[in-house]
Amino acid sequence: MPLVSFQPSGKSINAKAGSNLLEAAGAAGVEITASCGGKGTCGKCIVRIASGDVESNSLGILTADELADAYVLACRTTISDTPLTVEVPEQTGRKGGKFTSAAEDSGLIRQELFPRNWQYNPLAVKWCVSVAEPELEDGLSDLDRLTLAIQKDWGKDEIVYSFEVIRKVADTIREDAGNVTVTMIREPGRSHIIGIEAGNKTENHYGIAVDIGTTTVAVQLVYLPDGSITGTRTDYNDQIGCGLDIISRINYAAKKGNLEELRKRVLTTINKLIAKLVSIHHVKPDDIYNAVISGNTTMIHLLLGLNPEYIRLEPYTPTILRAPYFTAAEVGIDINPQSWVYLSPGVGSYVGGDITAGVLCTDLATPGEELSLFIDIGTNGEIVIGNCDFIMTCACSAGPAFEGGGIKCGMRAALGAIEMVDIDPETAGARYQTIGDVKPKGICGSGMISLLAKLLLAGWIDPAGKLDRSRESEFIRVEGRSAYYLIVPADESDTGKEIVINEVDFENIIRTKAAIYSACSLILDQVGMSFADLSTVYIAGGFGRFLDLEMSISIGLLPDLDRSIFKYIGNSSLTGTCMVLMSQEFREKQLDIASRMTYIDLSSDPGYMDKYMSALFLPHTDSSLFPSVKI
Amino acid sequence: MPLVSFQPSGKSINAKAGSNLLEAAGAAGVEITASCGGKGTCGKCIVRIASGDVESNSLGILTADELADAYVLACRTTISDTPLTVEVPEQTGRKGGKFTSAAEDSGLIRQELFPRNWQYNPLAVKWCVSVAEPELEDGLSDLDRLTLAIQKDWGKDEIVYSFEVIRKVADTIREDAGNVTVTMIREPGRSHIIGIEAGNKTENHYGIAVDIGTTTVAVQLVYLPDGSITGTRTDYNDQIGCGLDIISRINYAAKKGNLEELRKRVLTTINKLIAKLVSIHHVKPDDIYNAVISGNTTMIHLLLGLNPEYIRLEPYTPTILRAPYFTAAEVGIDINPQSWVYLSPGVGSYVGGDITAGVLCTDLATPGEELSLFIDIGTNGEIVIGNCDFIMTCACSAGPAFEGGGIKCGMRAALGAIEMVDIDPETAGARYQTIGDVKPKGICGSGMISLLAKLLLAGWIDPAGKLDRSRESEFIRVEGRSAYYLIVPADESDTGKEIVINEVDFENIIRTKAAIYSACSLILDQVGMSFADLSTVYIAGGFGRFLDLEMSISIGLLPDLDRSIFKYIGNSSLTGTCMVLMSQEFREKQLDIASRMTYIDLSSDPGYMDKYMSALFLPHTDSSLFPSVKI
Repeated sequence: MPLVSFQPSGKSINAKAGSNLLEAAGAAGVEITASCGGKGTCGKCIVRIASGDVESNSLGILTADELADAYVLACRTTISDTPLTVEVPEQTGRKGGKFTSAAEDSGLIRQELFPRNWQYNPLAVKWCVSVAEPELEDGLSDLDRLTLAIQKDWGKDEIVYSFEVIRKVADTIREDAGNVTVTMIREPGRSHIIGIEAGNKTENHYGIAVDIGTTTVAVQLVYLPDGSITGTRTDYNDQIGCGLDIISRINYAAKKGNLEELRKRVLTTINKLIAKLVSIHHVKPDDIYNAVISGNTTMIHLLLGLNPEYIRLEPYTPTILRAPYFTAAEVGIDINPQSWVYLSPGVGSYVGGDITAGVLCTDLATPGEELSLFIDIGTNGEIVIGNCDFIMTCACSAGPAFEGGGIKCGMRAALGAIEMVDIDPETAGARYQTIGDVKPKGICGSGMISLLAKLLLAGWIDPAGKLDRSRESEFIRVEGRSAYYLIVPADESDTGKEIVINEVDFENIIRTKAAIYSACSLILDQVGMSFADLSTVYIAGGFGRFLDLEMSISIGLLPDLDRSIFKYIGNSSLTGTCMVLMSQEFREKQLDIASRMTYIDLSSDPGYMDKYMSALFLPHTDSSLFPSVKI
Repeated sequence: MPLVSFQPSGKSINAKAGSNLLEAAGAAGVEITASCGGKGTCGKCIVRIASGDVESNSLGILTADELADAYVLACRTTISDTPLTVEVPEQTGRKGGKFTSAAEDSGLIRQELFPRNWQYNPLAVKWCVSVAEPELEDGLSDLDRLTLAIQKDWGKDEIVYSFEVIRKVADTIREDAGNVTVTMIREPGRSHIIGIEAGNKTENHYGIAVDIGTTTVAVQLVYLPDGSITGTRTDYNDQIGCGLDIISRINYAAKKGNLEELRKRVLTTINKLIAKLVSIHHVKPDDIYNAVISGNTTMIHLLLGLNPEYIRLEPYTPTILRAPYFTAAEVGIDINPQSWVYLSPGVGSYVGGDITAGVLCTDLATPGEELSLFIDIGTNGEIVIGNCDFIMTCACSAGPAFEGGGIKCGMRAALGAIEMVDIDPETAGARYQTIGDVKPKGICGSGMISLLAKLLLAGWIDPAGKLDRSRESEFIRVEGRSAYYLIVPADESDTGKEIVINEVDFENIIRTKAAIYSACSLILDQVGMSFADLSTVYIAGGFGRFLDLEMSISIGLLPDLDRSIFKYIGNSSLTGTCMVLMSQEFREKQLDIASRMTYIDLSSDPGYMDKYMSALFLPHTDSSLFPSVKI
C-alpha cells in the first residue's frame, strides 16, 4: 500500500494500488472540490503529481500545457504501487467563469460529445497471427504463409503488402516462432498490411488526431486499444511568421520556394507537438499507425504543398476537398512512416475539414426538425446552420484576435493566460484569473471578452471601444490620440512587464466579433429565418476551458437569446477528428455531412457589408437586438 | 527525294522519304542478302547508318551493341527526308553458323514468338480527357472535375490519385484549357491515376522490360502506342564483383551492409542501360510509365533488398514469389517514379520469374498433349517439362561459363565476341567469326561450343577435355602440367593480346554442359519418360544470335535427337517479359503457368550425382546416347 502525501496540507494516507486518487484524498481528509461528482467533466479536481507514478486519463479537459506540467484530474487518476506526492492548488481561482452556470459539465475536448453508441473501428487495426513453419517443397514463400495466416482470421480478401513490410517479413516471422503482429487496413475486397512486428504487439497501438488552425495547431494522442486520450498539445502554427490570416498566407505562397517553406513550417509545428507527446508519455512514434488531420482548406493545401492560389482567385476553386489516403512518409508526419493519413473532407475553399469534423460533435450530425446553429470562432469564422432538411455553411474573416494574434499582450489559451477579468467600477482596476493560477503572461480570447464586457458595463469604455479619458484612473493611460488600459502591473506579471490592452486591440476585437455576428445574422436571412427560430447554438473555438456566455452576449459576439440554448463545445474540430480516428463509422458520417452541406459565399452578398458595419459597436448599433444588455 | 549513298560500293539513288531501305538498295544495284525475303527475321540484311536519319524497328533481332552502333536491318528501315550514307558489310562472315539450317527465321529477342492474336493492354494506359472549367459555387474541386472527366470515358469506378499527381493537378489542368493526359492503371473497381500532363501526350508512352540474370542484365525499351521495340541493351550484372554465382552472392549478402551494396550494384546496371537507351532514342525517362522485371528468385530478392539467406538454407524458403506492385521510386528504377513495377512471378527459390516469362514464349503456355522440354541455359540452368497434364521444373547450377564468366578470355555475346570457330584438322589453327565482323575481343558461349566441338571432332582434344600434346601444333602450348590453345594471335585481336582458352576453361565448360544435360535426363526419369518422348525442345539463353545445334549435340550439351524438334528462342525471359509488359492477358497467363508448375529439388535426388559424373565427358561416358556423334 503506497503512501500518498498531499501538499501543502501535509496530510497522507496509505492507499491501495489501483484505487482512485479523489477517493484517497477524501479518505485522507483533504477537501478537493468536484462539482460534477467525480464524473471527470467539471475540471475542478485538478491536482499536480509532484512525484510518483499514476495512471491518469484526463481526456483533454485539461489543456496541453497543464498535462505537460503533470496536472491531472484527481477523479480520473488511479494510484499505482509507488509512493505519491500530490499538490492540491487553492481552489479559489477556479470558481465562476464557466460558460453557463447551468452547464457544470462543460469541458474542452470532450469525449462526452461522442454519441452514446458507436463501434470502435480505427482505420488501421493490429492483429496477432501465427505463421506456419516453412516446409521443404511446399512451394510457399514467407509471404504466402503470412497471407494464409491472415486469411484464416479475416477471410479470403486479397492481401496487399507495403514494400517496407516485405523487407521485414523474413526475419520477423522467424524471431518469435511465427508469432507476428500485423497492422492492417481493410478496404472492400482487399486488406493492406502496413506493419509487421515479432510477437504480440497489439497493445502498442496509438493514433493521432491533428487540428491545423490558421493560428493554432492541436495534436491529440489516442491510445487505441481502449480509446482513451493519452494527451493533447497545442501550439501556434509556425506559419504565423508568414502572415496572420489565410489570404496573406496564400499571397506569401506565390513567391518561389515559399510554398515549400509554408509546408515545412506547419510540419515543424505538428512534429514538435508529436515529439513532446511521445516523449512525455513514453510512446514510440513507430507505434502510431493511425492519423486523422483536419484543417481549413488552405491549411490542408499548404500541408500537402498544393498551390493555394486558385482558392483566392475567383471562382475560388481548391485543388482538393476530399483527399485519398496518403502515407505519413508522403505527408511528412513523424509517426510510423507507413501509417495512412486521412484528411477530413472539406466543403469549399472557405469551409474545410475542420468544420465537417466540428459538426460531427453536434446534433447537426443526426439532424431532427429543430434548427441548430454552429459557430466556430477561429481566425476564419465558420458558420453552419441546418436541420434534417438542409445544412448551409458560410465563412467570414474573423481574424486571429481571440487566439492572441494582432493583440499587443494577446496569447492563446495556455498556462498563464488571463482567462477572466473583473473590473472595479470605481477605480477601473482589474482582478483576474489565469489558466493554472500562475502569474499572468498575457490575455487569451475568453479574457479579452470578459475584459471588454466588464469595462463596457462599468462605463470605462464606450460602445465604440474608446476608453473613458474624462474620469481619473491610474489604469487608463493616454498617449497622444490613443489610450491604453493597464491590466497587470509589471511586478505582478510573469514576464516582469506590464500587461496592457490598447484601443487598437479593442478595434481588432470588435472587428472580430462583428464579423462573426453579422455572418450568423446573414446566413439566417438567407434561409429565411431569424435568431428566434434557433433551438441550439453550438459555440466552438480555442477559448480554453471557459467562454463567458453573458459577457459574449454583452459585447455582441453572440446573439441575445435564451441562455439555455447555447452549448460551448471547445475545440470541436479536434474532438470530431478524434472521433474519426477512433471509428470509421464517424468517417462515413462526416463524408455524409460534407456531401449534404451547401456553401454560401458571403462576400458576394450585397447585404453583408451593411450588417458588418452595424455590428462594429458594443453590443450593436441597434441596441434593440440586445434587450438584456444594460449599458 | 533524299540521296541515299551505299558504301563501300559508292552506288547511290534518290529515294522517296518513307520508302524501304532494302528496296532502295535493290534499286541502286546494291546486293544485300535477305534470305527471309525481307520479313525481318533472318537478320542477314544488316547495314550500318553512317550518317542521316532513318526510322527503324529492328525488333531485337540485332544485339544491343549492334543497335547502339547504328546497325539496322535494311528490310525494317524506312528512309526519312535527310540524305543518307549506308555502310554495307561484306556478307561472307554472315553465312552458316545458324542454329539449324532449316530455321532461317530464327532470331534473338523475337516478337514472332508472340501468339498471333492478343489484346494490347499494358498495365498503365495514357488517356486524354477534357476537364470542365471551374464555376463559382459549383462545389467541385479541381480533382472532382478531373474525376468526372475520367469517369465520363471509363465509367464510375473509384479514381485514386497519387500524391504527386495531386500536387500537379491545379496548374496542369489550367495550362491547356482543361486538356490533360492522365496515366491510369485500372484495377477491379478502381483506377489509379499515376501521371498527369497538360495537353495530349498519349504518344509519349514507353515501357521497359528488364531481365536480370546472375551474369547478364538486359533492358528493352518498348514504344507502347504501337508495341514496337525501340531498343535493347545488355550488360554484365555489376554484382559479378561480389561473386559469380547465386550461392556466392547470398553468402556475400550476409555481411552487414552488403545486401544494400548488392541492391545498388544491380540498380546501377539497370539504370545505366536505361540511361543509354533513353539517350540514344531521345526518350524522356518520365515518359516510361510501365515496367516489368523478371529474374531468378535470388536476383529479385537482391533487387528489392530482401534478405536472401533463407533461399540458401533448408527448407529453401524465399520471402516472396509473387510480389505486389511497387513504384519505380520504391524499387529505385530511373523511369517515371510513379510508374508501377511488376515482377514476374516465381515458382520456388531456384525457379524464378525469368522462367515463367520464358515459358510464356513456348507451347508450354498453351499446352496440348505433346511433351515439351524447355532449357534455359544461364548461370543457373532451369529445365521445364510438361504438357496439358502437368508442368514440372528443376534447376541446376550450370555456372557462368557460357556468359564468359570464369573463362580466361570469355565474354558475353556482344560486339567483337567470337561466336563461331572452324578448326584446320591438320594444323589445329582456327578460323573464326565475330559478332559485328570486327576484330575479336574474346569468345562467347556459342563460340566456346563451336570451338570445343571442332577441336573434339578434329581430335585435338580428347573426351576428357585435354589438349593433344602428342601432335605438333603452334596453337597448342604446354605450361607445366597444363596446356592452352591459341585462338587469335595478339596482332589480330582487338586488345592486342592473344585470345586463348586453357584446360581449366575446358573443364568449366564441360561441367556446365554436364549440369544441363544431367538435369534434363533426371527430370525425364522423374516423370517416367525419356528424351525419345519429346515433341519439342526449346533452348533459351544469351548465346547471341546463333547457337550451333550440331556442335551443341557433339559436346553432349543437348541430347542427340531429331534436329527438327529443337527451337532456339534466345533470351526468352526478356521476350516473355516484353509480352507481359504489352498485355495483361500475358500477365494472367504467366500467373497461371506459375501456379501450375511443380518444383523438383534435384539436389535431394540420389541419382543426380551419378548422372552428372557420367556427363563429364565429351559427349558422354555412354557414347550410345549420342549415336550421331562420330569422334
